[in-house]
Amino acid sequence: MSHTQFITLLTDFGLSDPYVGIMKGVIAQINPQATVIDLTHHIPPQNIAAGRFCLMNAYPYFPLGTIHIAVVDPGVGSNRRGIAIECASGFLVGPDNGLLTGVTQTLAVLTAVELMNPDYWRTPNPSTTFHGRDIFAAVGAHLANGVSLAQLGEAIAPETLVQLPLPTWTASDNGAEGCIQYIDGFGNLITNIPGSFVLGKTWALVVPDINRKSVTDQQSASFHHDSECLLIPSGQTYSDTELGKAIAFIGSHGWVEIAVNGGSARSQLQLNWGENVKVITQ
Amino acid sequence: MSHTQFITLLTDFGLSDPYVGIMKGVIAQINPQATVIDLTHHIPPQNIAAGRFCLMNAYPYFPLGTIHIAVVDPGVGSNRRGIAIECASGFLVGPDNGLLTGVTQTLAVLTAVELMNPDYWRTPNPSTTFHGRDIFAAVGAHLANGVSLAQLGEAIAPETLVQLPLPTWTASDNGAEGCIQYIDGFGNLITNIPGSFVLGKTWALVVPDINRKSVTDQQSASFHHDSECLLIPSGQTYSDTELGKAIAFIGSHGWVEIAVNGGSARSQLQLNWGENVKVITQ
Amino acid sequence: MSHTQFITLLTDFGLSDPYVGIMKGVIAQINPQATVIDLTHHIPPQNIAAGRFCLMNAYPYFPLGTIHIAVVDPGVGSNRRGIAIECASGFLVGPDNGLLTGVTQTLAVLTAVELMNPDYWRTPNPSTTFHGRDIFAAVGAHLANGVSLAQLGEAIAPETLVQLPLPTWTASDNGAEGCIQYIDGFGNLITNIPGSFVLGKTWALVVPDINRKSVTDQQSASFHHDSECLLIPSGQTYSDTELGKAIAFIGSHGWVEIAVNGGSARSQLQLNWGENVKVITQ
Repeated sequence: MSHTQFITLLTDFGLSDPYVGIMKGVIAQINPQATVIDLTHHIPPQNIAAGRFCLMNAYPYFPLGTIHIAVVDPGVGSNRRGIAIECASGFLVGPDNGLLTGVTQTLAVLTAVELMNPDYWRTPNPSTTFHGRDIFAAVGAHLANGVSLAQLGEAIAPETLVQLPLPTWTASDNGAEGCIQYIDGFGNLITNIPGSFVLGKTWALVVPDINRKSVTDQQSASFHHDSECLLIPSGQTYSDTELGKAIAFIGSHGWVEIAVNGGSARSQLQLNWGENVKVITQ
Repeated sequence: MSHTQFITLLTDFGLSDPYVGIMKGVIAQINPQATVIDLTHHIPPQNIAAGRFCLMNAYPYFPLGTIHIAVVDPGVGSNRRGIAIECASGFLVGPDNGLLTGVTQTLAVLTAVELMNPDYWRTPNPSTTFHGRDIFAAVGAHLANGVSLAQLGEAIAPETLVQLPLPTWTASDNGAEGCIQYIDGFGNLITNIPGSFVLGKTWALVVPDINRKSVTDQQSASFHHDSECLLIPSGQTYSDTELGKAIAFIGSHGWVEIAVNGGSARSQLQLNWGENVKVITQ
Repeated sequence: MSHTQFITLLTDFGLSDPYVGIMKGVIAQINPQATVIDLTHHIPPQNIAAGRFCLMNAYPYFPLGTIHIAVVDPGVGSNRRGIAIECASGFLVGPDNGLLTGVTQTLAVLTAVELMNPDYWRTPNPSTTFHGRDIFAAVGAHLANGVSLAQLGEAIAPETLVQLPLPTWTASDNGAEGCIQYIDGFGNLITNIPGSFVLGKTWALVVPDINRKSVTDQQSASFHHDSECLLIPSGQTYSDTELGKAIAFIGSHGWVEIAVNGGSARSQLQLNWGENVKVITQ
């Protein structure tokens, strides 16, 4: 008796149209036994960094051997490569544009191939705009059938995979500087500062104060003037502060995160993707 | 040969982020054979009453033994209890905040336990903000594996379950008074007056007339002045009135409901959650 | 060992409420082994033409024998017929309002029946507003169990099926005239001119120029005045033009389509459903 083979899908296709359903149909034609799980299809259009973040945070929660198909693909139809990667957790399938490299930052690439063999596509003449259907879904389903990476195309050197230049965080004597790397649907602001940095410390978070900034007009959002900043206390969870107040804590994916109890930190603090933040410790 | 075990998910997580997909990954790791069905993930954030209503209306349509995991959980990380309940239809898993009590209002609680045994959590150190992943999804998957409630934690007395204070409806000689208890995505206004009350009667519905109210300014929306009210005729279905007109009928879940043929009753009548309504009968 | 039976769902129910989850519960009660795949539940409310388009484009990607349940049903509760159709690809179930006729335009109807036998409904007293739950989901699940069309009701003549009057396209010496038949969630404008018409030709697309129209005020959007039109160049894919520029190509479903690289053609060109477009060839 065979075990269940899981395939996840992550795209920026949305759910308004049957595009995701069609990918599942293609998978069903090739491997009717696979169980398909949606990670999300609401990655902001063409936001590779957001897709990379979501995939990186989600893959550890799936069974070993799971095949993750990810399609955030502004370069579809151009000469960007389509790739499949094997790593310790299972398989990754998608465009070679950095989307898969959140995972491979943590897990070594065991094998990587360029998807050159049309025998494992849905059609030898794929659409120029929907490789999710004609290449990636088909390849993922074939992997679920036990097809090997070697059959899918030629091996490529892991160091040639396109990387996504991402903001880094830096630790200092009395804290750390980083930025907001993701904003979720609740308006929670997820920084790129690991929770392990603040664990066991007394700490708070400093963010730009948008209202004060508007008074001082064109001054920068950097941190020389404390009067332009907001200090956000730390806690364990939303309800460690009053309703409507902001609080910082280690979020469920392990990053320092800002939330507003019963509200949206994004709306209240008016902060956006990439904005600088600073942890201060005692 | 084992039968299929069904698990449903109801949350206020939305679908923008991979949170729901991650819960399904956790379930797949523990019980790869279970079939997971989404009830909805668009409960208005932290609206326990809306989640309670949806779960109460949906559970009768599922196979006996189905495990319903519901997470609308403003108190996550606080000392509110996590619970599992067995009743005649199957199992309920979620926070002890009233969310599950729509079902237990109809079906007797056979057993209820507090989820105290970390052996059946995803990790003994659950996130303070995502018990859906670390406790409830894991517990639901273990129940699908045949783990008993007694293994999950200590029994609790059903009468100690947190109840949700809900508006009641009252019958009178010439009708009934109640309120709008749910508004669906079409803008249909679902009251808390049971359809059985109007069945076979000649009836109409009276609702506050928002436009008139604005003229009389601060007067209350209660029903002393008929001139401030709208009379909505009753029928069997949307198309029993003209396009663009409001109609009241027994909705698909069995409650008196207001719709606008080809439109949104919420937008047209400008009524909101909790608003008073009155059935008048002949 | 039985093969997997697939059922797809396409509705205008949205995902805010548990309506779709409830349909899946009804299916699970009747056929727990079937695999249910969502095509989309975000068809614009009551837009039968949009639902028809999506189903017509999606069905070829599913395994033979798949049962497609489609519910965009403004006439629910009236005397419109509920039907099931067998064709070469599998089965179609839904209201007789034209929704299923995109498929039957391509594939011959082998058998069609009116759903008159309440033995295969969820209940002999179906809701007047939710046949998706009480009739169509139940019938689809019974079909997945091997129930024959003849058991579901009386045969009806295919020529009596309600057709949807749809705009046609016409070829001329130097091009073709058609219209926008669907707008997807990215704002891509999908015309009703088949890609096969432009394949291998040098061509461009002419659409009304909304900005110029506003200058000339009440003039029509027809094509006598070239000065009121925009010429959109053709290419192979989005990235064949600059970011922010419009391009026409053969879309993934095989129709001439307009997109904006990195943007929304709908927003930029301000074109809507049904708007006239013209292919010009050399």
